[in-house]
Amino acid sequence: MKVLLLVAHGSRRKEANAEVFELAEQLRCSDSVNADLIHTAFLNMAYPSIPDGIAKCIEDGATSITLIPYFLNSGRHVISDIPDIVKEARQQHPDVSIRIAPHLGQSGLMAELLIKIVNLLS
Amino acid sequence: MKVLLLVAHGSRRKEANAEVFELAEQLRCSDSVNADLIHTAFLNMAYPSIPDGIAKCIEDGATSITLIPYFLNSGRHVISDIPDIVKEARQQHPDVSIRIAPHLGQSGLMAELLIKIVNLLS
Repeated sequence: MKVLLLVAHGSRRKEANAEVFELAEQLRCSDSVNADLIHTAFLNMAYPSIPDGIAKCIEDGATSITLIPYFLNSGRHVISDIPDIVKEARQQHPDVSIRIAPHLGQSGLMAELLIKIVNLLS
Repeated sequence: MKVLLLVAHGSRRKEANAEVFELAEQLRCSDSVNADLIHTAFLNMAYPSIPDGIAKCIEDGATSITLIPYFLNSGRHVISDIPDIVKEARQQHPDVSIRIAPHLGQSGLMAELLIKIVNLLS
């Protein structure tokens, strides 16, 4: 059973966190996304935390979890913090495959999106 | 003279900041972007700062500056920190139009991008 875990930074502003839940909902509503379940977790300042998010995936029957880091740049959160948490989670859940997808900003499609957004400015 | 100022969070990792400079370069290379110049600035931990970036735009002849916040969510950086800096810059440069575009994550195209990225996962 394949579960996607959308992982965002987290904010003190609940409206900012709600945007991430809404995005996960849009993923769920997409016919083309190949996953049995989609959950959400936050690195900081919001719940569920990443370990809690991973535990929830496993509770729901996940045999394979893919974290999607919803981050723009390869700063320390992407390079160290998330991998460190996942390393620990793998030790706690050795029977579950847990992997980290490339972070959002790594996509070559990002420049394309930015250009589209800039062109929509009046 | 219209100048775009791409504003990112900034990181202690120089590689993460280099990604933002590279993205600005991709914007410059796009035929469709309607701007005379494109500069880059960082909120934290990297240079140029936003005030320095705005000053550079003006030094280069900007009469109109549009900040593009390269941020995913409407956390306090987007809601308070950047607007506060821009408010001060407007007082210092009353003859220049300085506006803030919607932040990247506000685009309805973001869910579409995320879905594409998820579908590219093997």
